[in-house]
Amino acid sequence: MARIAIDAMGGDYAPRAIVEGSIWAAQEYGVGLELVGREDEIKAVLEKVRKRGFILSDCGTKGHKRKIKIDLDKIDYTITHASEVIGMGEAVGQSIRKKKDSSIVASVRAVAEGRCEAVVSAGSTGAAMAASLFGLGRIHGVTRPAIAVTIPTMKDPVVLIDGGANSDCTAEMLTQFAEMGVAYSKHIVGIENPKVGILSIGEEEGKGNALVKETYPLLKEMHEQGRITFVGNIEGKELFVNKCDVVVCDGFAGNVALKVTEGTASMLLKMISSEFKSDIVGCIIGLMAKPFLRRILKKINWEVFGGMLLLGVKGISVIAHGRSSTYAMKNAVRAAVRVLNKDINSKIAENINR
Amino acid sequence: MARIAIDAMGGDYAPRAIVEGSIWAAQEYGVGLELVGREDEIKAVLEKVRKRGFILSDCGTKGHKRKIKIDLDKIDYTITHASEVIGMGEAVGQSIRKKKDSSIVASVRAVAEGRCEAVVSAGSTGAAMAASLFGLGRIHGVTRPAIAVTIPTMKDPVVLIDGGANSDCTAEMLTQFAEMGVAYSKHIVGIENPKVGILSIGEEEGKGNALVKETYPLLKEMHEQGRITFVGNIEGKELFVNKCDVVVCDGFAGNVALKVTEGTASMLLKMISSEFKSDIVGCIIGLMAKPFLRRILKKINWEVFGGMLLLGVKGISVIAHGRSSTYAMKNAVRAAVRVLNKDINSKIAENINR
Repeated sequence: MARIAIDAMGGDYAPRAIVEGSIWAAQEYGVGLELVGREDEIKAVLEKVRKRGFILSDCGTKGHKRKIKIDLDKIDYTITHASEVIGMGEAVGQSIRKKKDSSIVASVRAVAEGRCEAVVSAGSTGAAMAASLFGLGRIHGVTRPAIAVTIPTMKDPVVLIDGGANSDCTAEMLTQFAEMGVAYSKHIVGIENPKVGILSIGEEEGKGNALVKETYPLLKEMHEQGRITFVGNIEGKELFVNKCDVVVCDGFAGNVALKVTEGTASMLLKMISSEFKSDIVGCIIGLMAKPFLRRILKKINWEVFGGMLLLGVKGISVIAHGRSSTYAMKNAVRAAVRVLNKDINSKIAENINR
Repeated sequence: MARIAIDAMGGDYAPRAIVEGSIWAAQEYGVGLELVGREDEIKAVLEKVRKRGFILSDCGTKGHKRKIKIDLDKIDYTITHASEVIGMGEAVGQSIRKKKDSSIVASVRAVAEGRCEAVVSAGSTGAAMAASLFGLGRIHGVTRPAIAVTIPTMKDPVVLIDGGANSDCTAEMLTQFAEMGVAYSKHIVGIENPKVGILSIGEEEGKGNALVKETYPLLKEMHEQGRITFVGNIEGKELFVNKCDVVVCDGFAGNVALKVTEGTASMLLKMISSEFKSDIVGCIIGLMAKPFLRRILKKINWEVFGGMLLLGVKGISVIAHGRSSTYAMKNAVRAAVRVLNKDINSKIAENINR
């Protein structure tokens, strides 16, 4: 049975949502867990679950919560005590080196030492990244690991890379993101011949910032060599129309794009709900329309995707949203489970080093 | 009567939508027009309007078109012949210098020579910018002009600057964008004491790319000197929640953010419409919900905002969307009209040079 290391102390709702979400995932996907963090706090959450026999979750609908039965005795979990926690505001490099007994460093260690196949953390993205990088090491040939994010569209999901690991990038890094993204799209998303685009402003070659202009000819060359299928510049508004399967960008632009998507969707849904409340007829129609809107919410809710994969490290590291709920954490573990046995890292190594 | 110069040949639906939209605006807002472009083509559009006595527009609803009565004899317009057109793909600097008789260069000239108070173009953004910069000159002290975009939110509109004029920026440029954005927010949007934020990834100081990290302390210093009210980093998801009134960013990140907003909204509305079509009950509820959704569409539709203002040049230059419809063009002219008599440029000069 595969085993996943969980940073039980990372995230705004840790340890409750993290522990609950992980055991829910363990039960649902048949994996074992190594829960890493303050033993007494983890045990307290588990004790409550054992007593009640269920956990509560809205399952991503933002609506009423339902009970999910949990039989703790059937779940294969261990607890590894780690006394320290790295907070959201802490300087990353320093805290990783100093806090050797922090939950994130210790849970990465569980993978490095071979006890677990993957690690999931909803703590500080920077800390999770740095801990994974130092704890697991880079895949041979990879300059910098990057975050791959799966974006929902009307058709196949699109992979955006880098979602925020590297705020400043070189053209060479972006070409590697393309190679890693293609491996991910092919072997995890299931696209046979993924098309690669570069996030830019304006469609034509020559449009964009200095980084895009420098990267474009390199990607074009890789296309001519048959290494990737490059389709050119992708504008922000084209992210969701399946013009390509992999979008490469620096982590700053990528993270801005992801967060703007989140913000726009959230504002729009709020606007719709307030528009329906404008009069009594609207209220009635709004009530009838609710189940339809809820289904949309479920389709676009980041909680359904749960986690982003850090590509380029020797191991599987899933970075979950800092605001992860029980449901989001369950899905973050699922994101890790999906990658198990897919041997994505040797595919990345092949792509990078050929 | 104020007079607006119109680049009649710029935009995907030029000259028809451009000419129709401008005369509609002239009638509605009581301004005169100088229509610049190929005389025969402009006259052909005007002749059709004169014959019919109306124009057709869906008024931003994406629904059925309605007739807008136009009395051409009551509109004060002139036509200035310009034989050349600058296409979307052309190299900007070169074409501006070579095509002195292009519609965009000639319409900027109408402002430079004092015949018009403002210029509106839906042609290539780069060409419109360059023509405005070379034709009108920079406001004393301004390093680089930038595009100010008004973003709809649940409360007051937020000004994002730069929306795409400068793909690569320095920290000094961003501090000037802040000064220009504050002048715009105060004197055009009507916010008494505008709060300034910088677009970044992560909320805490120290998060972001190299440019943000370099700009942050400069904005902080301006805050301490009482020149602006700086509230720190703004994440992409916070653009619409009125955490600040002015968001500064480089033109690459800004344009990505704007286009992603457009793409997300469009995908979401498509998803909603297809979800309602999933069964017969849905179709009926969808039909009833349609007027409500249409009102939302109108609130967030870029066509309603029409144009973005190029700040930092000595004159008023409005850059309209390349896909501008008749309705969008009418509103782009309105965007210019709103700025007339507000003396925004002397306010910018004051802010920059104090």
